[in-house]
Order: sequence, then C-alpha cells, then structure tokens
Amino acid sequence: MHPSAPLKPYVDAEVMEDTARKVSNWNRWGPDDEIGTLNFVTPQDIVRASALVRHGKTFSLALPFDQNGPQNAGGWGMRFNPIHTMLATGSDAATGQQGHKGGGYADDMVSMPLQCGTQWDGLGHVFYGDKMWNGYDAKLVDSLGAAKNGIEHTKSSMVGRGVLLDIARYKGADYLAPGYGISNDDLDGCARAQGVEVRRGDFLICRTGFMEQCLAEADWGGYAGGASPGMRFETAEWLHAREVAAIATDTWGCEVIPNESNYTFQPWHMMVIPMMGITMGEIFYLEELAKDCAADGVYEFLFVAPTLPITGAVGSPINPQAVK
Amino acid sequence: MHPSAPLKPYVDAEVMEDTARKVSNWNRWGPDDEIGTLNFVTPQDIVRASALVRHGKTFSLALPFDQNGPQNAGGWGMRFNPIHTMLATGSDAATGQQGHKGGGYADDMVSMPLQCGTQWDGLGHVFYGDKMWNGYDAKLVDSLGAAKNGIEHTKSSMVGRGVLLDIARYKGADYLAPGYGISNDDLDGCARAQGVEVRRGDFLICRTGFMEQCLAEADWGGYAGGASPGMRFETAEWLHAREVAAIATDTWGCEVIPNESNYTFQPWHMMVIPMMGITMGEIFYLEELAKDCAADGVYEFLFVAPTLPITGAVGSPINPQAVK
Amino acid sequence: MHPSAPLKPYVDAEVMEDTARKVSNWNRWGPDDEIGTLNFVTPQDIVRASALVRHGKTFSLALPFDQNGPQNAGGWGMRFNPIHTMLATGSDAATGQQGHKGGGYADDMVSMPLQCGTQWDGLGHVFYGDKMWNGYDAKLVDSLGAAKNGIEHTKSSMVGRGVLLDIARYKGADYLAPGYGISNDDLDGCARAQGVEVRRGDFLICRTGFMEQCLAEADWGGYAGGASPGMRFETAEWLHAREVAAIATDTWGCEVIPNESNYTFQPWHMMVIPMMGITMGEIFYLEELAKDCAADGVYEFLFVAPTLPITGAVGSPINPQAVK
Amino acid sequence: MHPSAPLKPYVDAEVMEDTARKVSNWNRWGPDDEIGTLNFVTPQDIVRASALVRHGKTFSLALPFDQNGPQNAGGWGMRFNPIHTMLATGSDAATGQQGHKGGGYADDMVSMPLQCGTQWDGLGHVFYGDKMWNGYDAKLVDSLGAAKNGIEHTKSSMVGRGVLLDIARYKGADYLAPGYGISNDDLDGCARAQGVEVRRGDFLICRTGFMEQCLAEADWGGYAGGASPGMRFETAEWLHAREVAAIATDTWGCEVIPNESNYTFQPWHMMVIPMMGITMGEIFYLEELAKDCAADGVYEFLFVAPTLPITGAVGSPINPQAVK
Repeated sequence: MHPSAPLKPYVDAEVMEDTARKVSNWNRWGPDDEIGTLNFVTPQDIVRASALVRHGKTFSLALPFDQNGPQNAGGWGMRFNPIHTMLATGSDAATGQQGHKGGGYADDMVSMPLQCGTQWDGLGHVFYGDKMWNGYDAKLVDSLGAAKNGIEHTKSSMVGRGVLLDIARYKGADYLAPGYGISNDDLDGCARAQGVEVRRGDFLICRTGFMEQCLAEADWGGYAGGASPGMRFETAEWLHAREVAAIATDTWGCEVIPNESNYTFQPWHMMVIPMMGITMGEIFYLEELAKDCAADGVYEFLFVAPTLPITGAVGSPINPQAVK
Repeated sequence: MHPSAPLKPYVDAEVMEDTARKVSNWNRWGPDDEIGTLNFVTPQDIVRASALVRHGKTFSLALPFDQNGPQNAGGWGMRFNPIHTMLATGSDAATGQQGHKGGGYADDMVSMPLQCGTQWDGLGHVFYGDKMWNGYDAKLVDSLGAAKNGIEHTKSSMVGRGVLLDIARYKGADYLAPGYGISNDDLDGCARAQGVEVRRGDFLICRTGFMEQCLAEADWGGYAGGASPGMRFETAEWLHAREVAAIATDTWGCEVIPNESNYTFQPWHMMVIPMMGITMGEIFYLEELAKDCAADGVYEFLFVAPTLPITGAVGSPINPQAVK
Repeated sequence: MHPSAPLKPYVDAEVMEDTARKVSNWNRWGPDDEIGTLNFVTPQDIVRASALVRHGKTFSLALPFDQNGPQNAGGWGMRFNPIHTMLATGSDAATGQQGHKGGGYADDMVSMPLQCGTQWDGLGHVFYGDKMWNGYDAKLVDSLGAAKNGIEHTKSSMVGRGVLLDIARYKGADYLAPGYGISNDDLDGCARAQGVEVRRGDFLICRTGFMEQCLAEADWGGYAGGASPGMRFETAEWLHAREVAAIATDTWGCEVIPNESNYTFQPWHMMVIPMMGITMGEIFYLEELAKDCAADGVYEFLFVAPTLPITGAVGSPINPQAVK
Repeated sequence: MHPSAPLKPYVDAEVMEDTARKVSNWNRWGPDDEIGTLNFVTPQDIVRASALVRHGKTFSLALPFDQNGPQNAGGWGMRFNPIHTMLATGSDAATGQQGHKGGGYADDMVSMPLQCGTQWDGLGHVFYGDKMWNGYDAKLVDSLGAAKNGIEHTKSSMVGRGVLLDIARYKGADYLAPGYGISNDDLDGCARAQGVEVRRGDFLICRTGFMEQCLAEADWGGYAGGASPGMRFETAEWLHAREVAAIATDTWGCEVIPNESNYTFQPWHMMVIPMMGITMGEIFYLEELAKDCAADGVYEFLFVAPTLPITGAVGSPINPQAVK
C-alpha cells in the first residue's frame, strides 16, 4: 500500500492553534484531573466489555522485551533495547555458591527506557507549547519525574472495550507503506467494512501491518523514528468527536512520518496527548489478534492493558491483553 | 493475630523428598512445557471469569514502584527499589533545549530488580536440588537468563478467575503476625466462611494484612525477607489437590518465615515452584479489593495480571487487575 | 574537636554577590575555557611534582565502590551506592554454559551515580544564579548532559603537586566535629605547622578525619548531606588568592554543614565551582596517606587523579593516587 | 600492513597445557596473592619511572566513554556503550524546579559494562579450565562478583614505568591489518629499533594503529570481537620471560583474531591472565602518545592508570595517564 503522493505540509502554528482549541479537553474533568480521556470509560462499559468474552481466547499484544527490539544503540532520544541481567543464577546454585541446602534460586533485573517497546505514552510525555495535559506546566516534568500526570494515576484505568480497526487489511495490503497517512475516511470506511462502531470510552487499536513487515524482514530499519505509516493530523478531531479512551497502533509513534507539518516534529502528538488528554499506545503487536478478528469477523473484545505504576513516569512498558 | 507458638521444624530433606514426589507435576503437560499450572486454565474458565464482572469496578493490586518500596539498599539478594530516571524532561523543553518548535517531550527509564515490588515469580526463579520446573537443569538459568521456563512463555496466560481468601479477616485480625503459618484448615475454613469455592484453574490470592500493617506504620521493617506470616509447608499439597493456576499473597514471599524447616531456607518454594510448576505472586496490594469483597460478600472476580515478556526473565513486575 | 559555637549565618545574597565578584576567574583563560583552575598547572609543575617521588610509595585515596558506600537508598538527590552486576560468570563457565573449550570468562557492569563515592565534581555540577563556570548558561546542562564544562575536558589535567593539610591532626583531634568550620587561619596555621607551602597549581587536600570516624563506627550516619566539618565561606577567597588547581577533602561536600548561610544551601560551592572554576574532590580516603605524612613530615607528593572521560558528565568517580 | 597468510592454527589443548606449565606464576607470590605480575613493580621502579618526567606533558590514553564507543547494542557478550543519564540538570535549576535560592546543581549517573571502553581486564576475567589466577576456582566469580582476584586489590598498583612499542610504525604501516599476528621477533625488533629495553615491572603498551584506523573511518566495524591485529600465542612466553607488570594495546582484546587455535576462542588470554597473572589493558587510545614518542625518540614514561576499586569487579574502566 504505497502512498500515491507525499502529504501536503499544511500544519503550521496557526493550524495547530486552531485545532488545539477545537480538541481541548482541559478542565473537562476538573482542574485536578491527571488521566484525561480514560475518564470516558464507565463501569457499565467495563461490564459490557467483559461480556464480549465468548471464546476464552487471550491475545498478548506485546513484543518480547529484549535485545531484538526496535531500538538501536544511541537511537532516537537516547532510547535503547532492554538490558536484562541476572542478580543470581542457576549456575551459581549448581556450583554450590549460594549455600542454600536442597536447592537455590535465580533473580534478575532490567534497565529499560519506558518507551523502548510496547508501551503507553503517559500524559506527561508530550507538551504543546510549555504545557502538558490539563494545562499543567511542562517544567513539572523534571529530573525527579512527573509531578503531575504521572503514569501511576492510570493504574486501574486500563480496562474496557477494545476495537481493532485493521486498516491494512481494509486497504487490501499486507502493510501500509511508510509515509501513508491514515485519514478520517479510512477510519470510517474501515469501521463500516468491519461492521464495528467506535464508541465513547473505547480503546481503539489501528493496525498498519508495519511492525509485521519489519519482523518478517528481521530488520527494524527506520521503524523507530523513521518514515512510517500512521495517523493524519485531521484524525485528532475525529478521535475527539468519538470520545475514545485511548488509541494505539503497531507503529513506533502512531503518527504518520513524514507528517503534514514543516513547522514541528510531531504536531498530531501535541494535539492528542496534551490537549485532548489521550494516553497513547505504541509498538503493539497485532498479527495474531488481527488474524483472529478477520477469521470470525468480530473486531471488538475485552481489553486490559495495565500500566506499571512507576511513580512520576511519563510512560510504561506493557503487555496488553485482548480477550475474546 | 499472634502465633501461639513457633512452628515445629519438621521439614527435613526426607520430608521434602516425600512431598516433592507427591506434588510433582513434571511431564503432566509434556516434557517441553514451560508454564506449569497455568495450563489448568481453560478457555471456558476465562469466559466464566469474565461473566463475574457485574459492577465494572477495577482494582489495581500493585504497590507503587518507587523509592518507597519494600527493598532496602543492599537488601536481600542484591534487590533494590526501582530507580526511575529521565532521558528528556519538560524543563529541557521549557528552556528551549530540545529545539522542537511548538512544544517538546519527556522520556524516562527504569532500572529495577524484577522481584523488587508487586511481581510474579517465574518458573526459573527457584530450584529444588539442581532442577527447575519440569525437570530442566538449574544451570540453564545462567548470566544470559533462563533458557527454559522464561517468563515470556506466560505472556497470554494470566487471565482467569481470581479468588480472594481474606485469612486475616477470617481470623478476626487486622493482620496476621510475623511467624503465623497459614494452615490447610485456615484455607478451608476461610473459603467456607466466605462462601467461595477454590477451583481448578483459579488464581488464588491470600490476604494476611501484613503489607497494610507496614504501610500504616510507614516502615517496612523486616517485610523483605524477615519474619512474616505465610503459607505452612502442608499447603503445598492442598494447592496441588485444588489444581490452582497460581497463588499470590500480600507478603514478600508467600511462605511463612520462620518456616518449618531447619534444613533449608524456603522449603515450600522448592515444592511449589519447581515441583508443581506454580507461578507465584508476591507483594500484592490487597487493601481495597479486600474491603470491597467484605462489603458485598463476593470473593471471586475476573483477574488479569499480564507479565512483561522480558525474554529469559525469571520474574516480572506486574500491575494485577481484579475486575468485579 | 567540637565547634565552640554554631557559625554565624552572615552569608546572604549580597555577601555572595560581593564574593563572587572577588573570586571570579571568568574569562581568565578566554571565553571558551572549560577547565578553569586546572589551567594553573604548568608543565614545569608536573616535572617538579614528579621529582617528589622519593620512596616509590603509592597511596590510593579511593573508598571501595560498593554497597557499603556512604549513600543510602533514596538518599540525597537520588544518589545511591554502586550496583555491580555480572554479565558472565565463572559459575557459568564451570557448569559448561559458555561453550568455550578450555576455559571461560567473566564480565560485569556497574550502575552508579557519578557523585556516589570518591569523585571529582566537574565544572557543570553547580550553578550560581543561572550560570556555570566561565559564564555559560546553566540550561546547557540538560538531560543529554553538559554541552559545556563536561568532565571529559579534564582528561589529561589531573596530574601535579599534591599537598595534604591535615587539619584534624593540626588541631590535635582524631576528627573535626560535624559543624566545625575550617577557617583561613586554620589553613595557614596548619601549613605553617607542617612546614609546607601551598602554591599556585597545587592539588590541595584537606583532612578532617570525619570519614575515618564513620568507618571506625561502621555507620555513615549523616555523612552524605548531613552535618559535617568543612570549609568556611571565607576560604573561597583564600583559595582564589593561592591559585590552587583543585581542592579535595575526606567529606561528602568539602563545605561545612551547617554553613554560614540562611539564604541558600551551599554558598561556598556556588563561589568555588562556577565563579572560580575549581574542580572539587570529595569523599577522599586519607587515613593511610595522612599517617605516612605525619611519620616522615613530608606533606607534598605527586598527585594523579584522572577523571573517567564520560562525555558530558558533571562529575567522575576516581581513584586518586598520591605517590611519595 | 596486511598479513601475508593466515596464521597456522597449531594451538591445541596439548600446546596450551604445555605453555600453561611454562608461563605459570601460580604461588610465586604466595597462595593468597590476588594481583599477579603487578608484584613485579618495586618502589625503586616507581622512583625511577617518576624521574622519566622531563617535559611535564600528560597524555590521556582513554577513549571518550559515550554512545560513540566501540560496542554495539547486543554486541559481544552483552556489552554495550555507556549510558550516561542525569539525576538533576541545569534546566531544572533554570526553571526554578530545584527550589535552591541563588543557584542550583546537576548530578548524573552511568550504567556501563566495565569492559566496554578503555579498561583493565582484572585477574577474575578469564579462566583456564575451571581455574583463575593463582589457582582459585572459577566458580568463585559468581553473580555476587569475584570473591577472589577482584579488581579492588590493584587499587594502588598501577603506577610504574610505561614503555610503548609502536609496532605499526616499526612495520612502516599506518595500522596493522586485522589478522596480523605480532610475533616475538616483532617485539624484539621494535624495541631495538626504538632503542628501548623492556624490563621487569614495566607496563608494556603495544600500538597496532587499528583503533586510529576505525576512528579515521568513523566506523568501528568488527573492532569489538571481530578480526583484529594482535599478539601471537608465542608472545605469552616472551612476556613471561620479560616479567612485565602488565600489557596493553589499542585493540579490543590484545590477542590476534583470528588466532592460532581451532580449539578455543582466546588461547593467549587463557595463558596470560589466569596462568601468568597479568592484568591486561585494552582499547587504549595511543595516537597522540605515539606521535610524541616518534618525535622525540623517547618511548618510556611515567605510567599511572588507577583502577576504580569496584569491589569484586573483574575489570575496570580507566583513563590511563602517560607522563613524559
């Protein structure tokens, strides 16, 4: 699915300001809110989402966290693949070094950027101007972490109805090409074709197939920060109107790259995270879920993707679960 | 709830060997199995567990991951509290250091032992003799990680019916005292009193109240590795007979300390993890869930506690979700 | 050696501004300089310092870097003791896990704050107002490190004449008490008593005995950030007049705590590092060197304390060598 | 300087065993020794080495420690380039986040393999059979570090006479080609040509030019673990006869790759480190020192390369200083 032409770079400071005003949810849930659109999910939504479980099939939407992940050393923004090391081992136990009679144990640790693999971007992750979600000052995210909008506030808010929009399949492609911008028409058309409705409080997951292409080629190439299929700028308003709880894709950053702006790096992020208050999922592994949805024609499911409540974090590695 | 007397240290090498034979599940799911008792969960169990969601209430069972956690520097087995640091900040953005027009971003990383907070112990975590779950050699867990029984194999197996046995409340105590050993009779009596049945494939969660006591006192004291309430040795056979999928508690190590053995450090662990193949949950935060269960008398719920699939890991930090 | 009375807190904003003007070396070595007073060391100084080696005795002035160090978990400014972990072990080799015939190997890694043990504070470590050494903007030290005044610029500048002023011994004390402020008279008197002259380009090391006291008690207590003996504010001018290359002590921060200011946390630091351009040594282990100097009456030596040239770092762990 | 032909792979188990017997220094300094050939350095050697300082010129032999270093992510043996992150920044200070009147501060940390850059291999780094230096069991290097032969024992033993053998220049080459094996004749011929004698207790540094070639091409290629110029197997006996204190080169591992063995990975290492007890320097930056030596014809100097005394470490990052 190749883009017919580069996207027009119409998004300048003025367009952003105009869109920011339209999609802003600041103060919608009061001046102290720190979870944004996750507020859209009601208890009733959770009950209904649970009722979607009909076959007892669970899909993990996480990539393995290891040295084969999408980050390269010295990659974008200092990100690197997880470094998993051992604090105690079975070889220590087997050589008698642990001094425990009758057996032994192993322990381990990890050092990892919270944005290095399958993850939620928290509401402290992106700033528009010098503000973050709900109008808090960007500088409140300092070297000690996020004093506002820390990921820990979402610790029990990641359960609801998941909806997959398989844009690649809808477009008849194995994968959308880098640079392909998903439009509002694509979203509407795909939902219609799949017979699924995107509703208030949904966890919306869009598949581009781009990750699967990289996995098939065993080469991440520019996946992490390079050209990528993804959301067009206009979809910010679409998401705002639908009142989704969250959005996630199988790409590095949800947003199309190159995007529609010569003005700034990620204009869509600046609308969606700080202005709307959307927690954004990235690097989701969707191959098996998408196949199952295509097979049975059911694109909705119970979705549970709890954040690790690391105090003051601006993101979290996750293992999202789709249960059908 | 104070223990009336120290437990009798009857668990020697012979008792362990005898119990190991009784509770072994080796080869029950074939010689290549790497997930143990998680195999007990059937798709039908997941469908039924989802049907337990009646109010749309979600409880996070995770402690915050931060410097206030239960590990002390240089603590047991080199474990330490999570070190959360920033790779990019809002203060960088606010001072114009990032060079992105129109806004900016923050990123972060964490260095943490996988066993430092709310967590699953994987099947590579404990050895009996020089073997781990399903008979694999302990030495297969070396400095490169677990070549067998790595936590990544459980990535879509942590969904099912959760059952809370609130032993402290059953005993009429705010918390069970360090050294109190939970017996088979306690488990049976508590289940009966609560009107709940422990079934094949359940995720069984036992509350001692010990964590809440530490939190109330704002002092972890010996929580991490010191005297603790927990499971008596005999409960290994009880768990084996019930065919639970997993067990978790609100303590550091599930097992009572001091335990019933002068022979080895954690005899119950050596039965439950390597011989039975149970993935064990530790340091669960149960206060709010327990209050809710006491209030409505319903001690069963949908339980979703996905591991981070860190390749070759012997444990995983988690944010378990109980949904009622 | 107990302080007779608390120091008078006379250092307010005005006093600091006045002192800053007096001790400033900004632009002394041009507008692009990034090593400050290390410029005082001439090649001839190095030749002369080498000639001080008469017995071939080498003293390491470093504390061990390990979990017994002076930082506590969650301690001052997020500092923690070094975490040393293994990437490959002899037990892996011994159990045949490495697959190398005829032998094997071990590898390791460390995670450590650069300020956690024996160290140099670099010129990007402290700001006066919003400026650092030589007038560079403080904001140039962002999450990517120090774009100016990084420690790497000093990589071949830490060789010269070392001079020990053993203030504790001069005062007839095992150690100076926390809160004792070393005055200009103390420095002059001690030098006179020892028969040594402090000269331009010297690496001046002052001993308080405080670390040895903590080591003897096997308790760091408030060593890291609490009450401590150290330099009085007036010594900034003394150091400026002497044109020393660097100063180091056996305390956490060189400066007396509580200090002579109610206005700010570490007024002396703000004069010495950003205004004068002094690289400051902290947490030096001086016991053996001091004994040797007391024994032979020679308080000067060849001093070599190379920084690890970590690009953009604001400090460096070191193992300083005094050679007599 | 291209190798005329691949080296003959004559080093099998028998040759190693024979050589091991010849070059063994086990027990030479008693059964408790943990520093090996560093014992060769006498106080008199240090005095004489200091007298070599005639011009007051200091050369840093360290590469910068940063993301441009020679390790690739997921590289040889899990090694990676240093990860330098900030715990406090000037941008935090500039935005008023630190709350210190009158100024502020920056702090930082590093996570790094001890073998990732310019470094000493400690005596716990390599095993021959299941033994390390002085006959200690390899298994004594477990997940808790090296219980014997830890790098901390060398903390005051890295001062002495340095001698540079510039093999590349001697051979008339900018750099020795990967696969070129430095022979005993090369060492003798180079020393003769340079008019320098290698003596008991020397720190011998051999230049291949290979690092400079990589730096010039701005591409490390296979530098870290791939084909490399380096020492032939026979040089183990040469070094043993000369009784040098240490050896270092500007390559990843001193030893030629491919080497002269089909039997094991690094046969020369197994002789030199565990059998002789040599602390080995790797990834030394020699360009400027070599130019200076070529210019004045003086290849000897004071050498000071203190290890960071990380307790139980099997290596240490260093910034070696050559002073002429």
